[in-house]
Amino acid sequence: MKLRQRTATVLLCSLAAAVALAGCNARRIKERPSPRGTNVILLIGDGLGDAELAAARNYLTGAGGHLTMEKLPVLGRMTTYAVVENAPHLPDYVVDSAASATAWATGKKTSVGRLSTAPQTGEPLATLAELSRAAGIPVGIVTTAEITDATPAALAAHINARVCQGPNDLAFCPEFRRESGGLGSIAEQILHQRFEIVLGGGRRRFEQHWGGLGNPQALLDTAHQLGFTVVTTTSQLEGPLRPPVLGLFAEGDFDRLWKGEPARPYPGSGPQRCQPAGRPPEQPTLEEMTRKALEILDQLARERGRPFFLQVEGANIDKSAHAADPCAQIGETAEFDRTVDLVWKYAQERGNTLLVVTADHAHATQIVPHPSAGAHFPGLLSTLVTNEGALLTVGYATNAPAGSQTHTGSDVSVFASGPYSEQLAGRHDQTELFVVFARALGLRE
Amino acid sequence: MKLRQRTATVLLCSLAAAVALAGCNARRIKERPSPRGTNVILLIGDGLGDAELAAARNYLTGAGGHLTMEKLPVLGRMTTYAVVENAPHLPDYVVDSAASATAWATGKKTSVGRLSTAPQTGEPLATLAELSRAAGIPVGIVTTAEITDATPAALAAHINARVCQGPNDLAFCPEFRRESGGLGSIAEQILHQRFEIVLGGGRRRFEQHWGGLGNPQALLDTAHQLGFTVVTTTSQLEGPLRPPVLGLFAEGDFDRLWKGEPARPYPGSGPQRCQPAGRPPEQPTLEEMTRKALEILDQLARERGRPFFLQVEGANIDKSAHAADPCAQIGETAEFDRTVDLVWKYAQERGNTLLVVTADHAHATQIVPHPSAGAHFPGLLSTLVTNEGALLTVGYATNAPAGSQTHTGSDVSVFASGPYSEQLAGRHDQTELFVVFARALGLRE
Repeated sequence: MKLRQRTATVLLCSLAAAVALAGCNARRIKERPSPRGTNVILLIGDGLGDAELAAARNYLTGAGGHLTMEKLPVLGRMTTYAVVENAPHLPDYVVDSAASATAWATGKKTSVGRLSTAPQTGEPLATLAELSRAAGIPVGIVTTAEITDATPAALAAHINARVCQGPNDLAFCPEFRRESGGLGSIAEQILHQRFEIVLGGGRRRFEQHWGGLGNPQALLDTAHQLGFTVVTTTSQLEGPLRPPVLGLFAEGDFDRLWKGEPARPYPGSGPQRCQPAGRPPEQPTLEEMTRKALEILDQLARERGRPFFLQVEGANIDKSAHAADPCAQIGETAEFDRTVDLVWKYAQERGNTLLVVTADHAHATQIVPHPSAGAHFPGLLSTLVTNEGALLTVGYATNAPAGSQTHTGSDVSVFASGPYSEQLAGRHDQTELFVVFARALGLRE
Repeated sequence: MKLRQRTATVLLCSLAAAVALAGCNARRIKERPSPRGTNVILLIGDGLGDAELAAARNYLTGAGGHLTMEKLPVLGRMTTYAVVENAPHLPDYVVDSAASATAWATGKKTSVGRLSTAPQTGEPLATLAELSRAAGIPVGIVTTAEITDATPAALAAHINARVCQGPNDLAFCPEFRRESGGLGSIAEQILHQRFEIVLGGGRRRFEQHWGGLGNPQALLDTAHQLGFTVVTTTSQLEGPLRPPVLGLFAEGDFDRLWKGEPARPYPGSGPQRCQPAGRPPEQPTLEEMTRKALEILDQLARERGRPFFLQVEGANIDKSAHAADPCAQIGETAEFDRTVDLVWKYAQERGNTLLVVTADHAHATQIVPHPSAGAHFPGLLSTLVTNEGALLTVGYATNAPAGSQTHTGSDVSVFASGPYSEQLAGRHDQTELFVVFARALGLRE
């Protein structure tokens, strides 16, 4: 046991040394909070482009209805482009979740696949979460993906390739091995950051063993020794939990809430109604995780006289669109929108809270005319019978039918409420989120 | 000559009788203007969905730039769905230009293909342009398509099928023949409406002969006899013109300003730079037509102590997207955006002018990752070298490669400035344009 504790301490220390670069970078932005900062809650619908949003609205509320997020008082639009790795003065017009999340996490553009590191040089870029922690601001990260996936990881990790999620996943990032003096995998970096509450999937990354100076240990054991409250089921999430909290409710990503026939070549799947998929009960809903995160962060923020920063991701909208699975996609969007409702009510009651709902990139979905033999969408199609009883045909044709449907380069919508939200009205680049959040949290530049 | 004049008078009278229904409908909305109405200028980028907008921005200004329309102070979003002809309580999630223009022209939803007539019943729906005229408000309509095409026609015509553009085009609308007691083709109805200035293409529709009670006559001749100042070249447009003005600068639609290789299956066309296409000099630019319309409407409005209503359409964005021709599409978008610049400057100098820039529906364009043999967009592709020197790949895959690429069902952006513009912030349905325009013009409901 003592040996294990020493192992954990070594992890913290070795990581602390390795993260020094990022720390130096972080210190460039002076982190003294203003006396009264504003809570910041960012809700990311991964891949929730405007076509995905309209498809979900049509299905759920009818064409004339509004999703909850659309009722927020401030509307903006954001560009999401990345930059080219070897020519970072040039844009890469279609972004991925890693470069996109880096943009708001650090205020800097990077290239596709990178997490909070600069293109070409790999320089670590200080994140809002790190700056918050340095200012005594509690931080929460919630997702329905693995917590080592791109969107949550951008706040916590500095690494050259988003695939380097666990100690055994470093084939593309050999220089990040701690044995090589690196920062370690994304999972190791998340433990090091010790944010107040991190909830999602990806337990398999923490079951991997880190080298530990000749004393291999599963990261989960290390987490216990470092004082994390580790929870892995919905019922464990419900009780009172002492931060820092690490919730790992699935081996990989969460299961989808809804299922249906994926889109298929003409005449396509359906007409169909979407069905509950039976997410396993040990996996909480996004609302349940978010409610717990709000409870803990609210309490800590009051104790410390500080605001808090929370990022919540509805991750599997994106993954369902990659799979051309409209029912799964809409079910995840519905869950995300219910979470918006929960958070908006909290923000209205709490006051002094900036709430921002947006996406990290547009995706492949298109709402298209009903197919006929003479004229039809040439890719993957599905026709859904919406709640209002009409036929909604959605298509996916950004990759070969057997391939993963790709992101697209349209802007995304931004919905916001609370202090500073008017600064996001109109059209901005998503790096502006970093600036507005830092201002709201009282982190001075 | 006398006979011809009588023929023209007969056209007016017979049309007047036939339009009575529409007139009755119009009178239901009391048209007394408030003492000081606000000018309304609506600029429609036909098919200028957000992907089309982002593609043009990337090419023209760079990913980090802003088109002029994006600089307008108010941003909104609009749903554009139509309704099902035989079940008008149900939405048709993908609209066409006819049903879409009917929505803002009349405040009512209709089915695809209809122009300012109700689904199922065919009841004529009073248009903003008719209500304006009845209130002494001068009206202008400008387009780069045929003036009998859907977007301009929705303000001027009540007909069951948008294809019924000239007297010889009534195969789908036999009951609209004047010999059958109908309102006549779209071209005939435009002449009847006698709006102050109508500029665009479609001369071929006015070269057709109308029945004229056994005395066939070309509509162009009728127009002259009805007192229209008819112009057909850019130089004729430049001089002082006495309203009503009918400008017909092309046999059909205007030629495109830019050309390039259309999109093709993998590896696609390009990498290419777009080239000037050499629009014939007798066809004016959209700015030139708009400047003349503003000059005439401004003068008339001052004389009458009334505001004016002007609709300007950049029509061939849509037609270029149907043809999967990204250079033509971007060239037309650039012209449209220059027109926004012209109008915005006018509105700022003139004051008391509501300017709204939007689209009638989203279209097929997608901005996609650069294609490779292993993973590429399966439809029509083109890679452009943008002004900032980066590679922009756009794809079209909403119909078979040889077919016309179809519209899509995403919302469209709304950019606005001036009085009442804040009423368009956030998300609305496009029928709300009718309400806000009527309010601005001082047309009481």
